Amino acid sequence: MKFEAINFQRKYALFDEQWLPKVIAEMNDYQFKIVRLEGEFVWHSHADTDEAFVVIEGELRIALREGEVVLKAGEMDVVPRGVEHKPSAESEAKVLLIEPRGVLNTGDACTERTAPLDVWI
Amino acid sequence: MKFEAINFQRKYALFDEQWLPKVIAEMNDYQFKIVRLEGEFVWHSHADTDEAFVVIEGELRIALREGEVVLKAGEMDVVPRGVEHKPSAESEAKVLLIEPRGVLNTGDACTERTAPLDVWI
Repeated sequence: MKFEAINFQRKYALFDEQWLPKVIAEMNDYQFKIVRLEGEFVWHSHADTDEAFVVIEGELRIALREGEVVLKAGEMDVVPRGVEHKPSAESEAKVLLIEPRGVLNTGDACTERTAPLDVWI
Repeated sequence: MKFEAINFQRKYALFDEQWLPKVIAEMNDYQFKIVRLEGEFVWHSHADTDEAFVVIEGELRIALREGEVVLKAGEMDVVPRGVEHKPSAESEAKVLLIEPRGVLNTGDACTERTAPLDVWI
């Protein structure tokens, strides 16, 4: 029996909306979520967890209070718990997030940018 | 201050050896490990954890007792805990593993293929 791999680009092709992460896989109590990002997000932090960003396509800028990190396709970074950060992308970036189940995109601040959890695609 | 992203290919360029995972990042008690795979590995399973495979370059075949999954660059899969699997690659594949700190590559079987843990690059 052939099991099907999870193909990032085929998953992205299933939706257009930005800033709304979609779960594509789970590992223990962690989730792999893909998201399309464009423009500026809000400053936020996650008090209880680190958060991993992997760029699949495009360029992601993560502003930190002490500087910034710019991630291109084929690059990743981990924002430690409690560290304020603000993702942004000049043009659309396709990003893979890895973090525990139940982590809100806006972290400790619930705003109009807060996305629903556990939306699978 | 500009922080440097973790670039997969630049990390791979730092080593040649196969089947010896190198840690490139940690997220909570999970590790991101890169490895070069070629040829056949051993059947094994991890009783206590799922294991995520992301292919960065090349093609990875994961044999399962009930079939197989073939992963190309830009694809991933998660092998659930307790499920026996045997990775292989006809030609060298560059793979990103994500799993809890302390997981041995050979799972519950300690063999001559067992790689040391916590080797950072």
